[in-house]
Amino acid sequence: MATFHHYPFCPQSRFIRLVLGEMGIAPATVEEKPWERSQSLLMINPAGHLPIFVEEQGLAVPGAAVIAEYLDETRGLGLDGRRLLPDHPADRVEVRRLMEWFLVKFFEEVSAYLVTEKIYKRFMKAELGGGPPDMAAIRAGRSNVRYHLQYIGFLIGKRNWLAGPDLTYADLAAAAHLSCVDYLGDVPWEEDETAKAWYARVKSRPSFRALLTDRVPGMAPAAHYEDLDF
Amino acid sequence: MATFHHYPFCPQSRFIRLVLGEMGIAPATVEEKPWERSQSLLMINPAGHLPIFVEEQGLAVPGAAVIAEYLDETRGLGLDGRRLLPDHPADRVEVRRLMEWFLVKFFEEVSAYLVTEKIYKRFMKAELGGGPPDMAAIRAGRSNVRYHLQYIGFLIGKRNWLAGPDLTYADLAAAAHLSCVDYLGDVPWEEDETAKAWYARVKSRPSFRALLTDRVPGMAPAAHYEDLDF
Repeated sequence: MATFHHYPFCPQSRFIRLVLGEMGIAPATVEEKPWERSQSLLMINPAGHLPIFVEEQGLAVPGAAVIAEYLDETRGLGLDGRRLLPDHPADRVEVRRLMEWFLVKFFEEVSAYLVTEKIYKRFMKAELGGGPPDMAAIRAGRSNVRYHLQYIGFLIGKRNWLAGPDLTYADLAAAAHLSCVDYLGDVPWEEDETAKAWYARVKSRPSFRALLTDRVPGMAPAAHYEDLDF
Repeated sequence: MATFHHYPFCPQSRFIRLVLGEMGIAPATVEEKPWERSQSLLMINPAGHLPIFVEEQGLAVPGAAVIAEYLDETRGLGLDGRRLLPDHPADRVEVRRLMEWFLVKFFEEVSAYLVTEKIYKRFMKAELGGGPPDMAAIRAGRSNVRYHLQYIGFLIGKRNWLAGPDLTYADLAAAAHLSCVDYLGDVPWEEDETAKAWYARVKSRPSFRALLTDRVPGMAPAAHYEDLDF
């Protein structure tokens, strides 16, 4: 059986949990604390980041984007028989463009700020940067998320799903990152009804259920976090 | 004919220039100023970053990693008949892991700091952040590059090229980013002879020649920049 190393509130890990769910793959899971950069984690991924997918034969596949490409090449089809990274080169460009948008740009501008400041820092030792959140970083994340929400609304105004007619990695990457921010109550859904309706559709998929039951110890989610009709 | 939008000292653009050179593809080129985020650039890549590869039929492929995947899928083979992203899934994981290492991690920790502070800021208007370099950012880049150089030396101590027996995207991504830092004289080559010998091999490839003739107006390169036997 394969093993999946992740942290429940790491948005990159959540993306691959959704992918695995959509593909019907249920690996063993190991919860890691990404802020500790433990030796055992660095042994399987020298870059030190999550998630990591390890095949039963030992091959370690590190990082959300690399895992997504690998699973497409080795497992391929979602449960409904469609590829989450579609076949045509131009469609693949659009899915990868948006996947990178959320895994890199949204992460740098929104989710890394909010998750680090509000969640990771609660558990980090003071000498590793733990302590009270940096309010300037939180304000930056909260401000930046509005533009991304608008962009989702703009795309969904033209298409059924983010990258085209079908659900793809782009939707899963975007929803995974947004779900962490949503737990913290920092997505201004009222500002874009189109984006909100798209998120409700992704959120109601069976692959999303496990994410909705995750809890940060000592920190309740936003009131609507689990609500499929928020 | 395809068109390639780039900036000569954008390390992500340089990576794709090397890939195009290795594949024997010579598109028309358009030089952009990445710090201007012009409307025309945002029209073809809403994320606003370089490089962008535009097919003659109009398909715009934005971002170094997305272009690399696209060129592999549509052009495939390097001039010597080998794929720069090899066939076997495990080999592809290693190439993509290292490609991401340099395009994301090295960029964030080294090349973005140094290129922005030392080159882009010379040409940026003051209201957009131009002006004298931030010495703390330069120190951070100069300090971080040492660890990456060691990591290259470590890998090349075990393998012929960065990701395995053959030249791949990993070598081109690493060398492209290092080449910008090398122009600025900020690679401490004397600290790792193994990494230096690897770089000399990449630097002597015909695909590298155009990079060695680039000049920043008013700013000469480090003395050894063009020297193949530095």
